[in-house]
Amino acid sequence: MSNYIWVPIGVGLLTVLFAVYLANFVLRKDTGTPAMQKVADAIFKGAMAFLNRQYRTIAILAVLAAIVVGAVLALLGQGDSALKWNLAWHTSVAFLIGAFCSGLSGYIGMYVAVKSNSRTASAATRSLGEALMVSLRGGAVSGFLVVALSLLGVSIVFLSYAGGPAGLTDPATVALTPSLIVGFGFGASFVALFAQLGGGIYTKAADVGADLVGKVEANIPEDDPRNPAVIADLVGDNVGDCAGRGADLFESTAAENIGAMILGVALFSSTHNIGWILFPLVVRAFGLIASAIGLMYVRPSVVVEPDKAAGRDPGEIAMTQLSIGYIITCVISVVGVFLGSYLLLSGHGVSGSDGIPAWVWFGLAGTTGIVLSIAFVYITQYYTAGTWRPVREIAAATLTGPATTIITGIAVGFECVALPVLAICGALGLSFFLGSQVNIVIPPSINPGVINVGGIFGTAVATMGMLMSCAYILAMDTFGPITDNAGGITEMGGQAESVRDITDALDGVGNTTKALTKGYGVASAALAAFLLFSAYLDVLYSYKHNAAVYRVDLADISVFIAALIGITLMFFFSALAIRAVGAAAKRMIEEVRRQFR
Amino acid sequence: MSNYIWVPIGVGLLTVLFAVYLANFVLRKDTGTPAMQKVADAIFKGAMAFLNRQYRTIAILAVLAAIVVGAVLALLGQGDSALKWNLAWHTSVAFLIGAFCSGLSGYIGMYVAVKSNSRTASAATRSLGEALMVSLRGGAVSGFLVVALSLLGVSIVFLSYAGGPAGLTDPATVALTPSLIVGFGFGASFVALFAQLGGGIYTKAADVGADLVGKVEANIPEDDPRNPAVIADLVGDNVGDCAGRGADLFESTAAENIGAMILGVALFSSTHNIGWILFPLVVRAFGLIASAIGLMYVRPSVVVEPDKAAGRDPGEIAMTQLSIGYIITCVISVVGVFLGSYLLLSGHGVSGSDGIPAWVWFGLAGTTGIVLSIAFVYITQYYTAGTWRPVREIAAATLTGPATTIITGIAVGFECVALPVLAICGALGLSFFLGSQVNIVIPPSINPGVINVGGIFGTAVATMGMLMSCAYILAMDTFGPITDNAGGITEMGGQAESVRDITDALDGVGNTTKALTKGYGVASAALAAFLLFSAYLDVLYSYKHNAAVYRVDLADISVFIAALIGITLMFFFSALAIRAVGAAAKRMIEEVRRQFR
Repeated sequence: MSNYIWVPIGVGLLTVLFAVYLANFVLRKDTGTPAMQKVADAIFKGAMAFLNRQYRTIAILAVLAAIVVGAVLALLGQGDSALKWNLAWHTSVAFLIGAFCSGLSGYIGMYVAVKSNSRTASAATRSLGEALMVSLRGGAVSGFLVVALSLLGVSIVFLSYAGGPAGLTDPATVALTPSLIVGFGFGASFVALFAQLGGGIYTKAADVGADLVGKVEANIPEDDPRNPAVIADLVGDNVGDCAGRGADLFESTAAENIGAMILGVALFSSTHNIGWILFPLVVRAFGLIASAIGLMYVRPSVVVEPDKAAGRDPGEIAMTQLSIGYIITCVISVVGVFLGSYLLLSGHGVSGSDGIPAWVWFGLAGTTGIVLSIAFVYITQYYTAGTWRPVREIAAATLTGPATTIITGIAVGFECVALPVLAICGALGLSFFLGSQVNIVIPPSINPGVINVGGIFGTAVATMGMLMSCAYILAMDTFGPITDNAGGITEMGGQAESVRDITDALDGVGNTTKALTKGYGVASAALAAFLLFSAYLDVLYSYKHNAAVYRVDLADISVFIAALIGITLMFFFSALAIRAVGAAAKRMIEEVRRQFR
Repeated sequence: MSNYIWVPIGVGLLTVLFAVYLANFVLRKDTGTPAMQKVADAIFKGAMAFLNRQYRTIAILAVLAAIVVGAVLALLGQGDSALKWNLAWHTSVAFLIGAFCSGLSGYIGMYVAVKSNSRTASAATRSLGEALMVSLRGGAVSGFLVVALSLLGVSIVFLSYAGGPAGLTDPATVALTPSLIVGFGFGASFVALFAQLGGGIYTKAADVGADLVGKVEANIPEDDPRNPAVIADLVGDNVGDCAGRGADLFESTAAENIGAMILGVALFSSTHNIGWILFPLVVRAFGLIASAIGLMYVRPSVVVEPDKAAGRDPGEIAMTQLSIGYIITCVISVVGVFLGSYLLLSGHGVSGSDGIPAWVWFGLAGTTGIVLSIAFVYITQYYTAGTWRPVREIAAATLTGPATTIITGIAVGFECVALPVLAICGALGLSFFLGSQVNIVIPPSINPGVINVGGIFGTAVATMGMLMSCAYILAMDTFGPITDNAGGITEMGGQAESVRDITDALDGVGNTTKALTKGYGVASAALAAFLLFSAYLDVLYSYKHNAAVYRVDLADISVFIAALIGITLMFFFSALAIRAVGAAAKRMIEEVRRQFR
């Protein structure tokens, strides 16, 4: 069974080759007229300058953090000092590897993305189909690299820390190793925190600066070359949506893999089957295959060129095709999660209720997660497409001026929390129920029996299922800034109206797919919260051997106070981030005004 | 001990007489020039039209709700049908009485408030001191009536449901009665929900309408008689801040009294002392006395007239005097809460740790709540006064236009959650600790012993302490719309600049005191959340006799899902309210634009 470790490693390496193929496909394309190249160069320089500066800071801080993490683990806490040192250095090294892999995938992905924009703009002078290919595959480089490096990183660190393939046959080593690789996820989180906040704050400040001074004060159109903030705005789209979101989902996939592996330890110890620990990695590998097939479905022939559209919206047709590619990914993922459950989730003391085998129940739990990801596609479209009530309500509010526009926008923003949360809650409850139909006999020495292990693993399988399509989703996400940039390059490069029509159509699609990824990232994190929380309690139990650790009681004053503070942190961190946007936008506006004079 | 029921009833009746005295003081004053009277009449008519319309709707819905509540209690649930009918009709009747008392206090309070505005404006033609007296005492009518009617209502319903004074000597009756009066709090909540949302939505819509069309589109000053939305805006200040906030705190004081009385039942059953149940009512009565003394401290002689201010800000001096009045209220309240603890909180099996008597520990817990209310005065001033960082940051952001202003405003809005929550958490933790120093021997038949009864009662005493100053706070709150209206009447009544200076100074003070009351209302509700939650668990235990009801475990999937949904509701209800503001503002703006043409 331990040979299954080669599945994620093999698929991960193949995926890297696939990304090389996609990058090669894009970089072979021509880069357009000299005017377009000039704009693209400015964006490239800006984006790389930002990324270099940002990663330099992150690198220094990451090294410091790795030292602090190691020192805390080595010096504090209870127990044998050799064990503590062992945990400390493994965690610190994994931390640095996680941070490095996250940074590397972000760097290469964004390099290709900012090389794809002028190529997309140039392709748009020929056809919508070609422009779609260039931008989607350019985005896919980032998407597939992120997931592949996350998977390879976790798998290889796990294999090395176990001492190679031989270690995976020793039960004591296998049970210990998942908690040694936690640092990988922590390193990825560390980079994600900075990359998301840095990129996000930059992009919003540039956006506000460009729009407020350009559109409102100077009354010139979007992406007008006279507006000095326009390049910054185009750079911002890349560093926010491509690098930031990539780091976010790198972290999600890594942390959720590791969390599920830790949950698997108790099940491994009871069932004597390492499959419970390897399951997340194998399923993720299947997801990469599914995403690649879904991506390859999208070909120039599936879209309709604007001049042959006969009144239909070519952008809407392209969006539909991307959605079909996504559905294909999901259908293959369903097969993958059932297959993974069948191959890996069995062993001593495992039985399903109603005579249905355990792998079917877990396969259904995984399918719940996959269906949730599809639900998010529709919920996002409902809240971001102009055909539905929310956007129309905001549009109607603009007739009575900025105040009602902002009020209505905030109302819709607050409202759009509800449906996703209900969907997540439904998926959590259902996958818990499905998982709890599997009975797993666990000796009291391993787990006190106060929690429903099958149910909790069911939610973990649902999270794995949801994240199977991660590479495809990220490809669509980075597709967003590429098409947005292509629009800017077309506009500033002085291209014909017909070319602009093509980039506009793609840009519209990109706005929806970008919004989709945000929802997907949040949903997978929310779904994973229960699994990570449960994994934390499992680890705590393994130290304390006291069933009371599983009791987190809101009727207890300290938990009540902690919950109050926790809810407040949501507002407090939002305040810090929004405030930083305000301060950066202020500087931006002052600089743009200065240049305008 | 049961004779202490006459303390809240006696003090409540005296407070009603005090409110009559204050109303008489205000209504005797002259109403200014015919021009001022004309504006004041328009505000009066608008406010009364709104209130009549609103209360008519609320009355119909309240009767329906009372029937539904009664029917649900009578028909559903388990147990003896006679007991269920008994609970049902008591609850329905208490519901209607609670709703009626809340409505009555709101109605009379607002009547006096909208009669005070022109009298304040007229007094401002003579002196700041007189204007302060008229506006503060006009506001105090509302403040004292709200608290007095809430206290009288709970006390008299409790006494009647117990079958009169004789019933209070029968342990079985005493133990049952607190759960029969829950409907009173529910009725008050019902009115508060509608009054706050109705008033709040109206006032914000009118505000946006008046400012956007008047100030921004037509470029005329605030409170300009040419702006048709100005009267609506002035009406809105009354229905939002006076009627809405009054109903809010009527509900808070009633619900928290009842919740604490229910918590007291277990302690009564163990200690054979009804003082544990009567304590909240007696302490509230002491609070009314303290508030009245604090209010009477504020006299014309304590402020400085603008022409004698010699460069100092007369508004700031007036604010300081209101703060001194508040501190006086608080100091007397501290005495009151110690006295109440000494007189009422004793009995069989009660002892304090470290040899310190129980009443001292509970007195300290009550003092914690009082100190929290003072902390809120300073936190509110920090976030609303122009001398500190938050307001200055927003002011600086206006230099770079509306976008940065809104961004910074939202950031400060999100940020200002943190300090209050930390203060509340500190008070909760400290009062729980102080209360837990009291050991109360409770037989397992009454309480399973899994919770710390003394600690929970400590948080209840802190909540009681915080709410002792409620009448004073509400007086300052209604002072806000009265001075705001007086400013509008002065402006539209064509008064001299010097008069406007006085109303401006008072208006500035009123803006701070209005903000303060919002914080106070939220803080007391948050502080009470733990007490109400614990009271709910106590009632649940009295039905189920199963210690598991006290376990609300976040590691349990159903609690986890419920928590997710609970947090979402916060955003969802905000969305509904904000959306209603947007829709109402839209109609308002369209109407104002139509009249301008």
